[in-house]
Amino acid sequence: MRITARELAILLDAEIEGNPETTIEKLVKIEEADKQSLCFIANPKYEHFAESTHAGILVLSKELKATNANGTTFLRVDDPYSSFALLLEKFADTNQSNLQGIEEGAFIHEKAVVADDVYIAAFAYVSKGARIAKGVKIYPYTFIGEDVTIGEHSVIHPGVKIYRKTTIGASCIIHAGAVIGSDGFGFAPQADGSFAKVPQTGYVSIGNEVEIGANSVIDRATLGTTNIHNGVKLDNLVQIAHNVEIGEHSVIAAQAGISGSTKLGRNVMVGGQAGFVGHIQIADGVKINAQSGVSKSIHEIGASLSGSPAEPYRQHYKHIAQTRKIGDLIARIEQLEKSLKNNNA
Amino acid sequence: MRITARELAILLDAEIEGNPETTIEKLVKIEEADKQSLCFIANPKYEHFAESTHAGILVLSKELKATNANGTTFLRVDDPYSSFALLLEKFADTNQSNLQGIEEGAFIHEKAVVADDVYIAAFAYVSKGARIAKGVKIYPYTFIGEDVTIGEHSVIHPGVKIYRKTTIGASCIIHAGAVIGSDGFGFAPQADGSFAKVPQTGYVSIGNEVEIGANSVIDRATLGTTNIHNGVKLDNLVQIAHNVEIGEHSVIAAQAGISGSTKLGRNVMVGGQAGFVGHIQIADGVKINAQSGVSKSIHEIGASLSGSPAEPYRQHYKHIAQTRKIGDLIARIEQLEKSLKNNNA
Amino acid sequence: MRITARELAILLDAEIEGNPETTIEKLVKIEEADKQSLCFIANPKYEHFAESTHAGILVLSKELKATNANGTTFLRVDDPYSSFALLLEKFADTNQSNLQGIEEGAFIHEKAVVADDVYIAAFAYVSKGARIAKGVKIYPYTFIGEDVTIGEHSVIHPGVKIYRKTTIGASCIIHAGAVIGSDGFGFAPQADGSFAKVPQTGYVSIGNEVEIGANSVIDRATLGTTNIHNGVKLDNLVQIAHNVEIGEHSVIAAQAGISGSTKLGRNVMVGGQAGFVGHIQIADGVKINAQSGVSKSIHEIGASLSGSPAEPYRQHYKHIAQTRKIGDLIARIEQLEKSLKNNNA
Repeated sequence: MRITARELAILLDAEIEGNPETTIEKLVKIEEADKQSLCFIANPKYEHFAESTHAGILVLSKELKATNANGTTFLRVDDPYSSFALLLEKFADTNQSNLQGIEEGAFIHEKAVVADDVYIAAFAYVSKGARIAKGVKIYPYTFIGEDVTIGEHSVIHPGVKIYRKTTIGASCIIHAGAVIGSDGFGFAPQADGSFAKVPQTGYVSIGNEVEIGANSVIDRATLGTTNIHNGVKLDNLVQIAHNVEIGEHSVIAAQAGISGSTKLGRNVMVGGQAGFVGHIQIADGVKINAQSGVSKSIHEIGASLSGSPAEPYRQHYKHIAQTRKIGDLIARIEQLEKSLKNNNA
Repeated sequence: MRITARELAILLDAEIEGNPETTIEKLVKIEEADKQSLCFIANPKYEHFAESTHAGILVLSKELKATNANGTTFLRVDDPYSSFALLLEKFADTNQSNLQGIEEGAFIHEKAVVADDVYIAAFAYVSKGARIAKGVKIYPYTFIGEDVTIGEHSVIHPGVKIYRKTTIGASCIIHAGAVIGSDGFGFAPQADGSFAKVPQTGYVSIGNEVEIGANSVIDRATLGTTNIHNGVKLDNLVQIAHNVEIGEHSVIAAQAGISGSTKLGRNVMVGGQAGFVGHIQIADGVKINAQSGVSKSIHEIGASLSGSPAEPYRQHYKHIAQTRKIGDLIARIEQLEKSLKNNNA
Repeated sequence: MRITARELAILLDAEIEGNPETTIEKLVKIEEADKQSLCFIANPKYEHFAESTHAGILVLSKELKATNANGTTFLRVDDPYSSFALLLEKFADTNQSNLQGIEEGAFIHEKAVVADDVYIAAFAYVSKGARIAKGVKIYPYTFIGEDVTIGEHSVIHPGVKIYRKTTIGASCIIHAGAVIGSDGFGFAPQADGSFAKVPQTGYVSIGNEVEIGANSVIDRATLGTTNIHNGVKLDNLVQIAHNVEIGEHSVIAAQAGISGSTKLGRNVMVGGQAGFVGHIQIADGVKINAQSGVSKSIHEIGASLSGSPAEPYRQHYKHIAQTRKIGDLIARIEQLEKSLKNNNA
């Protein structure tokens, strides 16, 4: 990689501030940049680096006020995070492997249907009736249950377990150790204190361009389908219970959990370690802060909530601030009591 | 499946409201019901569907007030959830596979003891000294460590890892990716700031009819045994630390965690994402709400707690409600201060 | 095992209270001790057992006040937990297996470099360019990606998935189902509401003597390296996001999560289910309580925080106590309002 600011500006549709002939050789984090480096500020928290960096070229937002007093050539863009993604794609090692074909030692049932140009690793297990479309990559220790279908160009990383009759769309990425289609958690209490298992007879359906994080779990429906729609992104260690529905392009951060039969709309954003009770509806575009507990349906499109039980974001932080000054209130009440006692004395 | 209301009433010991000859062909969720459908209301949240559904037959509680004005035949039962479980068992695809025998490519140590009528998949690994009882199903990528015993008719889903000397009872279901018998988290702080590993020399013992969710983890004891008693149900991504004991028929929802040496009684119910500190005792029948943090022993049988640190349920919701009106209190104090100042002026 | 109090006192550098010829045969938990038993009090919560136990020998802290009125021989030590670790190491079954060599059925790429005296199980998968140092143990279903390096005497338990180019130091223990090097969770929002994947082009680097719990996940960096330094201990089901850095000898309990680019110093202690937002710095020696939510950098070395958002420990518990007496405040305000009204009447 050797590229000038002028060339990068064309690629990124950027405005140049500084020397258009500045040439860089590598893409690095701003903390580690030298004269040969291209780097980025995609998060405003790092704005203070803009004027102190020794980077050759810095890509940043048109909205940041920093100036290139330090000799760094600035490339101003509308959306530095998307520019960052584009350059990583183009210049960095994207950790894509070129593995192809079916390795010796894969188990593929004779009644499975496998397209020609797939990668299936040693120790993969493809059950009876499974259908694997073209361009799919299946890494070792991936269990593909009976009658599972996997759409074109999806990548299934090592150790993913997909229970029977699950359908997975095209261009999905499922990270290592994820489990899809395990039984929902349903038990009917019996008179003697024990629990009878409620059979989990439904399925899981995953749309296209869904990404599922490592060791996340999606349970099959009791009856019907657990639905993860197109473009949904789940982080690691996420729990999706039976009969849940996640609308298109919703994003759920690590260790969050959605209880049974809850339905999230489109473009919902859920912070890490947040939880939802079962049987509620969440409107499109709702944002739920990390560690919140959502206990009721949210009908307002685009609402932002926080806390447990969750309440509107601003209100929550006002309540937190007020509560943490409760010592002052106690003092003021004491003062009032004293004054009143004096008055009445 | 083709069955009349009259036949179903006998099966479920139900009272018929409407036409006993109504015939249905399938079992579906109430949201998707048509004239050929049998459906259920097991959760009172869905009661509003009872009078609007077009289902042929609806099974519901004797306690619900809805009437079958819409022409649907009602079957009234004492416990609709148990009836639901029964019909799923009878009429739906319970996703049980009929796999049998030992597949080529399974690794079974010559000193393992395996009963005749088991299913052991390709890529299963059964170590030296392991004992697998009759009717057990072991899916691919299941690691059965040295001297592990697995009781009759237990099902071990793909990718379960069972460390050495663990004992698992009869009729258990262990879901994909669960880990049983990993080392407890014990480290002795050293003078130089580092930590010395405390060897984890104990075991894990799992009773009968225990179900363990996908990617859950149960650590072995430091000394002695981590005990999961008969009938316990653990959801996905649950953490059970070393030397924990879980009493019979206790139920723990997803992403909850129990710290070391804590003992839960019988029929305890733990909500999702709840946590328990170590070395405490929880009485029989205690209910802990989702996301609660239990920091002390609970001695009252059947107590319901919520919050972090956990307090009695009603009290917690009273405190939440009061705290969220703290703005009013501030206003009232200001008013009092003003009045008093005026009085004293 | 048959050993006298006198011999143990030499081994543990302990002071004897009672009969130095007392002989024990086994090491057990204090709840289960009889005359033939050696047991421990390492946690002051169990101090009440000291005077009621029937153990032959009890090891306890010099600081506990209990006396051996019951005939048990006491061995007083400075650090009973370290003594406990030492004796477990010496006398208990430490669950170490003696497996050696490369089992038939392991997949080792011809361009992988594997030292002589390793254990590599059946169903292990060692990719092209991987380097496995001497004394390493690799259990079944372990995926070692391309160009991964694993240092001397590290133990990789079953079903661990290590993505390409990860480096792991010497004497590490990685528990079953852990995932190292999965893609960070980075997506650039697009105008149509969808998300474009930001390629995750960096790596994970794990130091020496690191222990990683079962089913924990460590994501690779977007650019650069996710760094887990020497001596770090992670419990089960922990989430470490992209570009995180964890300083030497820091300890993170189960189900905690660290968001992207956050940096923890040395000897930080994190309680279970705690969470950290991204892009913050945590000073050396900081202690974070279980279930806390850390939303800002912490600059004070050794600070203790609790709550969500986290605040200083003492302050948090004061706020909790005050908030839970808010009913009293309401009553006092009502009383003041009444008094003032009477005064003004």
